[in-house]
Amino acid sequence: MATNFFGQIFRITTFGESHGPAIGVVIDGCPAGLLLSEQDINEQLALRQPGKNEYTSPRTEGDTAEILSGLFEGQTTGAPIAILIRNKDADSSQYESIKDLYRPGHANFTYLEKYGIFDYRGGGRSSARETAARVAAGAVAKKLLEQHNIECSAFVAEIGGIAITPPDLSHLRALREKTYSSPIFCPDPKAAEKIMEKIRTVKEEKDSLGGILACVVHAPVGLGDPIYGKLEALLAGAMLSLPATKGFEIGSGFQAARMRGSEHNDGFEIDAQGHVHTATNFSGGTLGGISTGSPIFFRVAFKPTSSIKRPQQTVSLSGEKAVFQLSESGRHDPCVAIRAVPIVEAMTALVLADALLMNRVSKARENFGHR
Amino acid sequence: MATNFFGQIFRITTFGESHGPAIGVVIDGCPAGLLLSEQDINEQLALRQPGKNEYTSPRTEGDTAEILSGLFEGQTTGAPIAILIRNKDADSSQYESIKDLYRPGHANFTYLEKYGIFDYRGGGRSSARETAARVAAGAVAKKLLEQHNIECSAFVAEIGGIAITPPDLSHLRALREKTYSSPIFCPDPKAAEKIMEKIRTVKEEKDSLGGILACVVHAPVGLGDPIYGKLEALLAGAMLSLPATKGFEIGSGFQAARMRGSEHNDGFEIDAQGHVHTATNFSGGTLGGISTGSPIFFRVAFKPTSSIKRPQQTVSLSGEKAVFQLSESGRHDPCVAIRAVPIVEAMTALVLADALLMNRVSKARENFGHR
Amino acid sequence: MATNFFGQIFRITTFGESHGPAIGVVIDGCPAGLLLSEQDINEQLALRQPGKNEYTSPRTEGDTAEILSGLFEGQTTGAPIAILIRNKDADSSQYESIKDLYRPGHANFTYLEKYGIFDYRGGGRSSARETAARVAAGAVAKKLLEQHNIECSAFVAEIGGIAITPPDLSHLRALREKTYSSPIFCPDPKAAEKIMEKIRTVKEEKDSLGGILACVVHAPVGLGDPIYGKLEALLAGAMLSLPATKGFEIGSGFQAARMRGSEHNDGFEIDAQGHVHTATNFSGGTLGGISTGSPIFFRVAFKPTSSIKRPQQTVSLSGEKAVFQLSESGRHDPCVAIRAVPIVEAMTALVLADALLMNRVSKARENFGHR
Amino acid sequence: MATNFFGQIFRITTFGESHGPAIGVVIDGCPAGLLLSEQDINEQLALRQPGKNEYTSPRTEGDTAEILSGLFEGQTTGAPIAILIRNKDADSSQYESIKDLYRPGHANFTYLEKYGIFDYRGGGRSSARETAARVAAGAVAKKLLEQHNIECSAFVAEIGGIAITPPDLSHLRALREKTYSSPIFCPDPKAAEKIMEKIRTVKEEKDSLGGILACVVHAPVGLGDPIYGKLEALLAGAMLSLPATKGFEIGSGFQAARMRGSEHNDGFEIDAQGHVHTATNFSGGTLGGISTGSPIFFRVAFKPTSSIKRPQQTVSLSGEKAVFQLSESGRHDPCVAIRAVPIVEAMTALVLADALLMNRVSKARENFGHR
Repeated sequence: MATNFFGQIFRITTFGESHGPAIGVVIDGCPAGLLLSEQDINEQLALRQPGKNEYTSPRTEGDTAEILSGLFEGQTTGAPIAILIRNKDADSSQYESIKDLYRPGHANFTYLEKYGIFDYRGGGRSSARETAARVAAGAVAKKLLEQHNIECSAFVAEIGGIAITPPDLSHLRALREKTYSSPIFCPDPKAAEKIMEKIRTVKEEKDSLGGILACVVHAPVGLGDPIYGKLEALLAGAMLSLPATKGFEIGSGFQAARMRGSEHNDGFEIDAQGHVHTATNFSGGTLGGISTGSPIFFRVAFKPTSSIKRPQQTVSLSGEKAVFQLSESGRHDPCVAIRAVPIVEAMTALVLADALLMNRVSKARENFGHR
Repeated sequence: MATNFFGQIFRITTFGESHGPAIGVVIDGCPAGLLLSEQDINEQLALRQPGKNEYTSPRTEGDTAEILSGLFEGQTTGAPIAILIRNKDADSSQYESIKDLYRPGHANFTYLEKYGIFDYRGGGRSSARETAARVAAGAVAKKLLEQHNIECSAFVAEIGGIAITPPDLSHLRALREKTYSSPIFCPDPKAAEKIMEKIRTVKEEKDSLGGILACVVHAPVGLGDPIYGKLEALLAGAMLSLPATKGFEIGSGFQAARMRGSEHNDGFEIDAQGHVHTATNFSGGTLGGISTGSPIFFRVAFKPTSSIKRPQQTVSLSGEKAVFQLSESGRHDPCVAIRAVPIVEAMTALVLADALLMNRVSKARENFGHR
Repeated sequence: MATNFFGQIFRITTFGESHGPAIGVVIDGCPAGLLLSEQDINEQLALRQPGKNEYTSPRTEGDTAEILSGLFEGQTTGAPIAILIRNKDADSSQYESIKDLYRPGHANFTYLEKYGIFDYRGGGRSSARETAARVAAGAVAKKLLEQHNIECSAFVAEIGGIAITPPDLSHLRALREKTYSSPIFCPDPKAAEKIMEKIRTVKEEKDSLGGILACVVHAPVGLGDPIYGKLEALLAGAMLSLPATKGFEIGSGFQAARMRGSEHNDGFEIDAQGHVHTATNFSGGTLGGISTGSPIFFRVAFKPTSSIKRPQQTVSLSGEKAVFQLSESGRHDPCVAIRAVPIVEAMTALVLADALLMNRVSKARENFGHR
Repeated sequence: MATNFFGQIFRITTFGESHGPAIGVVIDGCPAGLLLSEQDINEQLALRQPGKNEYTSPRTEGDTAEILSGLFEGQTTGAPIAILIRNKDADSSQYESIKDLYRPGHANFTYLEKYGIFDYRGGGRSSARETAARVAAGAVAKKLLEQHNIECSAFVAEIGGIAITPPDLSHLRALREKTYSSPIFCPDPKAAEKIMEKIRTVKEEKDSLGGILACVVHAPVGLGDPIYGKLEALLAGAMLSLPATKGFEIGSGFQAARMRGSEHNDGFEIDAQGHVHTATNFSGGTLGGISTGSPIFFRVAFKPTSSIKRPQQTVSLSGEKAVFQLSESGRHDPCVAIRAVPIVEAMTALVLADALLMNRVSKARENFGHR
C-alpha cells in the first residue's frame, strides 16, 4: 500500500534503505518562485548528522544532498523537487551474524511477518537513516515558511529523567541558537551538563536512555483544518511516525487530565493594536484544531535506544531460543532523542507548510492567483 | 480543503453541524458481503448517548441511524454506505446571547479567523456532536474486524487525578462488559465510586474535570505500514482529531523517557505452538509501526470540559472586553472524557479496518480475489 | 476500495442506489463565503430530470435536494456540504423477472463477479440515477466558478448520425439558452427537428440511438496541472466515468491524427490590450495540460441506450441460455446522450472548481489568506 | 499542488526535467516478493529510446535505470522502489535563441502564466522526456501483472491517415512481436511501408504527422471500480495525461454514437467450460467500468509533432510580434505517436496493476493475508 508519502498539497514521498545505494525524497506541490539551494538542505542535514561527539552515534554519515529536479536558476518552478542523498560508510558485515535472530526492540520480526522478506542490513527501510530524507524535505518546507514568517524550534526537554528549566518561548531565534550550540541540543546548559554525565555513565554500562523533546512554533491564526485535519492531529501523526517515539502531547498535555475547566480555559484578551489573543496558553496554540496565533507548543516522548551492547533474550528465525548480542564495535546512539531534534523540527515544518497552503483555499472570495 | 475524510481504503467522510438538520457519514471502501443492520449502528450510538445519568450531559440526543445506501438484503454490496442521523432536541436559542463573544476553550475565534463565518448554534461543525458520525462509521468497521477476530476495548483509566487499578487486558469481552456496565465507563468499581463523588462535587462548583482513557486491541501480526503509515501514527492522528484531546501515548508512553534500553526492550519468546511473541510489551503492541500480535495498548488525555457555568474573561467580536457566562439551564458534560469511551473505540476500529485492508495488498504472490 | 470520490481540494463523495431510499453527495473542500441555496441545486436537477417529453425517459424523478450541512445564513461555511435526494417513483417489481439473467450492456455480470452480490433493483449503484448526485454537486461548483467568471456549456452535437451546425462558442449565455430551450438540448433547431424525427422512429422500432455531446468552457489562463493533473486528463477521466460514454476528444481530437504540424500548431498573437492568445484553437484551449485562456472545447461519445425492448440473447445466473426481454411498460431513454447534457456540464464544473482551487497554491509569494 | 503522482495503491511519483541532471520515479505500494532487476526496466526503456532510425528523433538518450531502493536479493520488499535515469546528451544551447518567444504548440506560455518561471531548456518538465520515468514504472507494473497473467500490447493503428488492417487480438505475444520488430511499431507490414514513405516525405517538407495508437489488454473479470474509478475513466485519464494526446475511445468509441442499441449490446454466451462471456465486444471489455474478461480495447489520438522546422507566427515574452524558427540541426520526432507505443503500454500497465490491487479488497470474507 502506498504509505510512504506525507502531506496533501505540499506532499513528500521518501525512499531508501540504510545500506542501499541512496535515500531520498520527492517533494510534490512546492509552490514556484522559492529561492532554494543545496546549501539550504545540507545545513539542515548537518544538524542531524551523527558522529560529532560522544553523545551521538559515531557513524559518519557525511550527508550531501543532490537536487535532481524542480529548480531553475536558483528558484523552485512548481515541478517536483527530487533530493538524493547517497549512502556512505555503510558496513553491512556486522549484520551477518545477527540476521537470523529476531532483534529486540527492532522491526525485523514484524517486517518478516508482513512482507515475507526483510533487508536486514542496518535495519533496511526501518532504520532511522530514513529520517535524513525527512530533514531534507523539511529544509524546503522551512524556506516556504520563512517567507510567511513562520518559525519552529525543537529542543531536548528531558533525558534520563533530568528535565530542563522551561525556556522562554517568545524568541525562537535565540532559542534555536542556544539549542544548536549545545552538543546535545539542550538549551539549558546546567541541565545539559547533568544529562551528558548521565549519558557517559550509561554508555559505560552498555545501556541507553530515553528522553522528551519539546517543539514550539510561531504561526499566524487560521492554520489547520477542522475534524481529521486538526493541526494537533497532523502533528501527532507526524511525530508518532518517527522511529522510537512513544507519546505526544500538546499544550497542557497529560497534565490537562488533572486540571479543572476553570483553570484550563484560556480567556481572551485584546491588545493595544486591537489583536485578540488568549491570555494563557494551556491549549498549546490551537482551538478546534486551528492555530490561535499563540505559540504552538508540544512534546514528544522517545524510548531508550533499542540497540544496546548487552546480551538479550530472543528467538531465531527458525524458532530456537537464542541470545542476541550486538558487536562491541557497532555504532549506536546512547539516546536517540538527541539527534531527533532537527527531525522533529523538519516534520513540524512539513505539517505547517501543508497547513499554510491548505489555508489558502479556505475562502471563496479571495484572489485566486489568476488574471 | 477536503479534510473531512479519514482512512485510505476504508474511508469515511463525515458531515453535519450540531444544530443543523442532520449529521452523517459516507463509508467508501467497505468490502462486500458483510452482514450489517441499522441495529448494529444504533447499539453503538446508544453507548455514546448523553442524558443517561448525572455524570454526562442531560441533552437527550436519542440518535437513530438511517442507512441510505450500500446495503442489499442485509449485506454490504461494496457501494458506499451512507448513514444519516437526524438532529433532535437542538435548542439554539441559548446561543443567541453569547454569539457575539469569543468563547474560552472553544473554536469560534479560530473558525471566524479562518473562514470569516461561523455557525455558532451549539458550536456548529466544531461541536462534539460530530463524533456521533464517527461512532456510526466505527460500528461498521467493527463488523469487518469481528470477521477477522480483531477486537478493541476502551475505558476510563483516570479522572480528576483518580486512577484505576490496571485491568486484565487479556479478555476483552469481560473488560467491555465491566466498562459498559459502569455509569462512567470505568471497569474498576472502587475507583468509579471515588470518581463519581468527585464529579458531583465539581458540578456543584460549576466546574469540570479532565481525564485519561485507555484502549486495548487484540489484532494479528502485520497490521500497520512503515514510515508515515505506522499504526501508532495513525492511532495518534485519530485520537488527536477528537475534540478535547491533549495527548496520546502507546505502550510505555511518556514513561519510556525515564527508562533504560535494557529495561524497555521486549525480548522474544516462542510458545508451545511455535508462535513467536514478545515476553514483555513495553512497546505497546507494535514494532516499526506494525502490530506484533501482542495487545496494542494506548492512552489518550482529555482536557476538562470547556463549557463551565462560571463567568470567564473574554472579548467580544467587536473588540470589547466582556464576561462570558453560560446560561444556568445549559446542558454540558462535567467530564467529556467519559462519553469519549465509545468514540475512542470507534476511531480505533476505523484505523484497524483500514490497516487490515491495506495489509491485504502487501504481498505479490497471494491470491488476488479474481479467477 | 474507496473510489466514490472525485477531486482533490474540492472533493465530492457520492452514494446511493437507484431504488434505495436516497442518493446524495458530500462536498468536502468548498471554500467559505459562497452564497448557496437549495434552489440553486434544484434548478440544475430539473435540467437533468427525465419525464419531460417523449425524447427522454418517462420516469418522473421529481428530484428535490435537501442541504443537510455546510450552510449558515445562506452562505457556505467551509464545512462539508451534504446534499440528499430522496428516491421517489421507484417501482422495483419489474426487475423481479429479469434478476436472474445477465443483462446485455449492463453491469450485473461484472458487479456479481467482483462483489458476489448485486442490488438488481433498477441497476442499483450502476444505474444512471447516481448522476443526479453529480449534478447536485456540480451546481455548487458552478456557484464557485461564477464568482471567478468561469462558465461552461454542454450541448447535443450529434445524435443517430445527424450532426449539428457548429455553434458560436464565444457567447456561452446565448448558447446555453438555445440549448436548454430545446427539448433535446440541441442548440441547432433544424438539426434538432431531424433528430427528434429519428428518435420517434427508433422508439417505434424498440431500439435506441447513440450520440455525441460537446462542451465549451470559458476560463482564465493557468488552470490545470502538469503531467497527471493535465486539464484534459481530468476532463477525460471525468467524462469516461459517466455511464454509457465510449470516447473523449479535445480540440482537434481524433482529427488531429490526420493533420500536419504546420496546420495544427496554434500560432500566438497579441491583441490591442497586450494580451497574448493563440490565433487558432486546434489545441482546444490547453497547452501542456494548462488552460490557455482560449475556449476549452471537447466532445464525448455516448453509446446507444442499452435498455431496449427487443429480445436479446443472454445467459442466466445459473448458466443456462436465455432470452432477455424488458417489460413493455418499462421506462427508458431512447438516447441517453440527451439527458447527459447537464451531467457533462456538472462534471466539467467539478473539474474546473478543483483546478481553480489547485491553482491558488502555485506560487510561493502570493498572499496566503492569513494576516 | 501535488499532482505528479498516479495511482492509489500502486502509486508512482515522477520527477525531473529534460535538461536537468536526471529524471526518475518512486513507486510506492508495490507488493513484496516480486522478482525485479534493472535489466527488466532497461529493456522497456530501450523500446522507448529515440535515435534508432529515421522515423524517430535522432537524440540518443541511451537511458539506463539505477534502482536506488526497495529491492533486496533480487526481490521487492514492499518498500518504495526509486528508479533514477540520468540525463545524457542534453544540449541546451539551441534553446537560448528561442527562450524569449512563446513556442507554438508548446507549454512555455501556460507554464509562465501559471508559475511565473519556466525551465525552457528542452521544455523542462513539459518535455516528453518525462515519459521515460513512466516507462520505468510501467516495467515494474508489468512484472506484477505477469504474475497474474495479465498482458497488454499497444501498437500503431494509423499514421497520417493510413490505417492498418486490424490485427488478431487474441494472441498478444505474437502481436507484440510483430509490433516491436517494426521500425515504427506497426504490426501490419504493408501499412507500415506506406506510412514510412509518408514520414520520409513529410520530413523533407519540414513538417510532421499525427497518428492513432491502439492498445489491447487480456485481464480477468472484475478489475476496475464503479463510478469515478471505472477502468475506462482511469485509462482515459492516463492516456490524456500523455503529451500530444487529443482523444481516447474504448471499444466502439466514437462509432458508438452512430449505432443502435440492438447492434451495440453485447449478448452473453456460455462456453463449454461453463464460463460466461460476451458474444461480441463492442463495449471494449468493460461493463459498468469493470472488466468483463473479454479483451479491453482502446485507441488514443496523437496530434502531429509540434516541433517543426518551418517558420511560425508568434509573440515574444515582451509582447512583440515575432517569427519562431527552430534550428535546422535540432532533433525532433516526425511523428510522436510512434515512440508513444511503449509509453501507452506503460500507462496501461500502471492502471491495471493498481486495479488488480484495488480488487483485492472488494470482498469482506476472503483471506486477508494474515494469520
